[in-house]
Amino acid sequence: MSDAQASASTQEPLVEDPAAPSKSALKKKAKEEEKARKAEERKRKEEEAKAAKAAADSVDVAADSYGRLPLHQSQDDTPKEPFKRLETIGSEDVGKTITFRARLANSRQQGNKMLFCEFRQSLVSIQGLLELNENKEGKPLVSKQMMKFCAAITLESLVLVEGKVTAVDKPVESTTIKNFEVHIGKMWTVIAVNPLPIQITAATQPPPAEDASEEAKQATIGLDTRLNYRVIDLRTRTNQAIFRIRSGVKHLFREYLDARGFIEFETPKLQGAMTESGASVFNVKYFERPAFLAQSPQLAKQMIVSGDFDRMYEIGPVFRAENSWGPRHMTEFTGMDIEMAIEHHYHEVVSLLEDMLIFIFHGLNKRFGQPGGEIEWVRKQWPSEPFVVPEKAVRLRFSEGIQMLREAGRDLEELEDLGTEDEKMLGRLVKERYNTDFFVLDKFPAKIRPFYTMPDPHDPRYSNSYDFFMRGQEILSGAQRVHDAELLKQQMAKVVPPIDPSIMKDYINAFEYGAPPHAGAGLGLDRIVQFFLNLPNIRLAVAFPRDPGRIEP
Amino acid sequence: MSDAQASASTQEPLVEDPAAPSKSALKKKAKEEEKARKAEERKRKEEEAKAAKAAADSVDVAADSYGRLPLHQSQDDTPKEPFKRLETIGSEDVGKTITFRARLANSRQQGNKMLFCEFRQSLVSIQGLLELNENKEGKPLVSKQMMKFCAAITLESLVLVEGKVTAVDKPVESTTIKNFEVHIGKMWTVIAVNPLPIQITAATQPPPAEDASEEAKQATIGLDTRLNYRVIDLRTRTNQAIFRIRSGVKHLFREYLDARGFIEFETPKLQGAMTESGASVFNVKYFERPAFLAQSPQLAKQMIVSGDFDRMYEIGPVFRAENSWGPRHMTEFTGMDIEMAIEHHYHEVVSLLEDMLIFIFHGLNKRFGQPGGEIEWVRKQWPSEPFVVPEKAVRLRFSEGIQMLREAGRDLEELEDLGTEDEKMLGRLVKERYNTDFFVLDKFPAKIRPFYTMPDPHDPRYSNSYDFFMRGQEILSGAQRVHDAELLKQQMAKVVPPIDPSIMKDYINAFEYGAPPHAGAGLGLDRIVQFFLNLPNIRLAVAFPRDPGRIEP
Repeated sequence: MSDAQASASTQEPLVEDPAAPSKSALKKKAKEEEKARKAEERKRKEEEAKAAKAAADSVDVAADSYGRLPLHQSQDDTPKEPFKRLETIGSEDVGKTITFRARLANSRQQGNKMLFCEFRQSLVSIQGLLELNENKEGKPLVSKQMMKFCAAITLESLVLVEGKVTAVDKPVESTTIKNFEVHIGKMWTVIAVNPLPIQITAATQPPPAEDASEEAKQATIGLDTRLNYRVIDLRTRTNQAIFRIRSGVKHLFREYLDARGFIEFETPKLQGAMTESGASVFNVKYFERPAFLAQSPQLAKQMIVSGDFDRMYEIGPVFRAENSWGPRHMTEFTGMDIEMAIEHHYHEVVSLLEDMLIFIFHGLNKRFGQPGGEIEWVRKQWPSEPFVVPEKAVRLRFSEGIQMLREAGRDLEELEDLGTEDEKMLGRLVKERYNTDFFVLDKFPAKIRPFYTMPDPHDPRYSNSYDFFMRGQEILSGAQRVHDAELLKQQMAKVVPPIDPSIMKDYINAFEYGAPPHAGAGLGLDRIVQFFLNLPNIRLAVAFPRDPGRIEP
Repeated sequence: MSDAQASASTQEPLVEDPAAPSKSALKKKAKEEEKARKAEERKRKEEEAKAAKAAADSVDVAADSYGRLPLHQSQDDTPKEPFKRLETIGSEDVGKTITFRARLANSRQQGNKMLFCEFRQSLVSIQGLLELNENKEGKPLVSKQMMKFCAAITLESLVLVEGKVTAVDKPVESTTIKNFEVHIGKMWTVIAVNPLPIQITAATQPPPAEDASEEAKQATIGLDTRLNYRVIDLRTRTNQAIFRIRSGVKHLFREYLDARGFIEFETPKLQGAMTESGASVFNVKYFERPAFLAQSPQLAKQMIVSGDFDRMYEIGPVFRAENSWGPRHMTEFTGMDIEMAIEHHYHEVVSLLEDMLIFIFHGLNKRFGQPGGEIEWVRKQWPSEPFVVPEKAVRLRFSEGIQMLREAGRDLEELEDLGTEDEKMLGRLVKERYNTDFFVLDKFPAKIRPFYTMPDPHDPRYSNSYDFFMRGQEILSGAQRVHDAELLKQQMAKVVPPIDPSIMKDYINAFEYGAPPHAGAGLGLDRIVQFFLNLPNIRLAVAFPRDPGRIEP
């Protein structure tokens, strides 16, 4: 239409009008018209150029290579290749195009032509490079639109990436995979998140030094915040490592016992009677009667041994309603319990447990202690000295422990229990003398052990009982048990206040029916993880810890 | 003294007494005295003989070879040989003297010179022979006293035996070791029991046939009695076998998953919010606030996957306050749970679970299915057809299952859940058509599955969910989960009555923070054991089962 107007305005008039304006007026008008026409044409050309540019821009050469994937509802069941796991990338992959899903751990734009990404899968990460390329052959097409989309993806979103594995000249600093990077050809969000309430990098920081600035201390993520956002916190490399190590402890525990004829059981956590002292029991409403949560599998596991399973173990939850907020106490923890018939002496069990723990420690170091391995990752956040495993366990009598502490200046009674600080001090003394972070105290005073503990045959002030320590902190408690119903009843009567045998009828009967001499132990899985890694708090060793103030998430 | 008296009475009087009796009177008296003397001598000789006999008898030639051992308090810690395990006895032991501890399962005297014993250790037993021998050389000395002591030992006492392994000419019928017996030299009671309230032989009887006599039915030990005396019942070969098989299921489950990168977790059983429906939850008093026992690890395990543990499993207790007394329901059972991120389709998980269960079934048959093995022992008491394991799992759509049942005459709605009887019938139909005791139903109607189930992408009446069946009974339930927070909230709103998202804040947040697409399943360990062995009641697969009426022992 602007063309038609323009041509009409340049035509000469065919008939002269009597009222026609003067020639100069006409000339002026023509000039003005010419000016307007030119302005219009300029405008038109500008618009044309703009439209052409816009048209050219909307041809997104990478339109099929990025975007947000629809909700994954398993729409398509045609067989497909599994995604690549980053930890399997090696030199044989160089030049190959791989597809993988990962967290976008980091991204940084360099100018408007390059985007560096860090992709993370658990403990492993790789650098990705997205390079603007709208026509270069032999390289993936990456449009400005794609660049913009990818640069805007919120960190910790889950992305699906296709790219070519490429060797790099200079090792990549920021990722665990140093020698390769991925040249990104396609990238979609599988799940795009909003910015997270805590950042992975902050959650992975070691605790601030004593003399750190107030600002640095403020920026540290405290235990409570960490546990409130535990799902995010679990993604840190520290936690990815801790829970692999934790899983490994159980694995090694079972491996050792399975090879020695132990059978695994589950004992009921709902109990009609209390299993330990009444103070620390959780009450459950069981239909119309009261019930209790098992404070230990003690009674049940002894009954199983009386049922002719000479060697049994169990891994399961243990509940303690103790209003204790300390760094090694929780209301629910994971007990690893064993119970076994003994032949000549309860030291058969003590020796087995010592060997088992040394087997576990060596196993952990072997599986998780390589350079760049899980233990190293944990130490980056929670610095610690390596756990010193002895050649052979150091086993001391309780009285020898008291003696060592007295020599070191502690004023202690012979038959009283050790406090936490005494235990830690003893741990240091033992380490100085024997160079071990693991030791055993044997022959505890009878009066500080439960009624089902077998008295020492030669000195009734003591008992056939033992605790094991890691870095001076108790991780195992055990004993030879009383397997004679009469002696058991006598010992129940001596407890203050006495225990009524009628509420433990089934338990006592198990010995009336004839149980072999036996001994056992309860180990705290969470504590083993805590002290092996020297974590400052037991809650860091548990996915979703429980204490008097925390029952969520 | 009788000698002195006798000699005094025979002396003549030295002086005649004026009042002396007549000679005849004296003669008579002398005769009487002589008679008394002789009677006395006879008596003396008899007593002498008796004393001599007693003295001879009290020389017990086997005095140090039997008796009751003192209470085992680990009195002696000098190193000693371990006891012999009966299952290790072989021809290389013939002629050797072994020491072992075992239950006295049976004893039978033959005349007064022989005592046949049956000694039992778990599944293995051997015949022992005690032969009277007070002087024969080259054979152990066995006195009458020892014979009497041993014959009087109450069955199920725990005995310590020393004896020589001897090959027998004719296989022993009554014991599992057929070709050897032990010639007993020494035998002590470690623990002597009073007669037990239920007998092992009775507890091992198969259920009486329909047409059995009233007497036979009366003599059978019922389930309740069995569970009341569970410690004794656990000693039967049937139970020694069942709990080895049960332990094996867990072992194989973990073996399969460990090899595929799964990490084991423990999730808390104390919960601040209910995890499934409110009707079946146990309430706990948690200090000053209410808490609940986990009805499943569902929420926690999904949160762990969102925490970047792409493959996790857990074995732990699950609590359901259902007032259900059926043969496959309990208030506490052992759940084996898995959860994993999926890549292209939730059938990745279904295929993995199918393969895993077939791996478990084959593993059980291999470990426990040899002749004379555990499965055979269980079948002696609980007869069953072998569990038919398919080459490859049969996977049917729920709608196909409905179709098969309709064709077999059942009148069923398309989108309603199947009842127990329908499931069993479908199990029979599948077995007829495919010859398998194990099959999978896929694509359940959406409305009969929990709110966190992913809808089918093509037909919203269905969902991406599945159940697995053994002998027509459900042992696994699972699904692809909703991993999108918005859709999850929509589905919670649709539940009748709607679920308030605020009580599931932590759970919903786990998806706000970005969880990968994932699917999982909960398996019932107890049910797998029950249906693999076709036990008539799930309680038989659990050491100390819990139901609305039973919370002890």
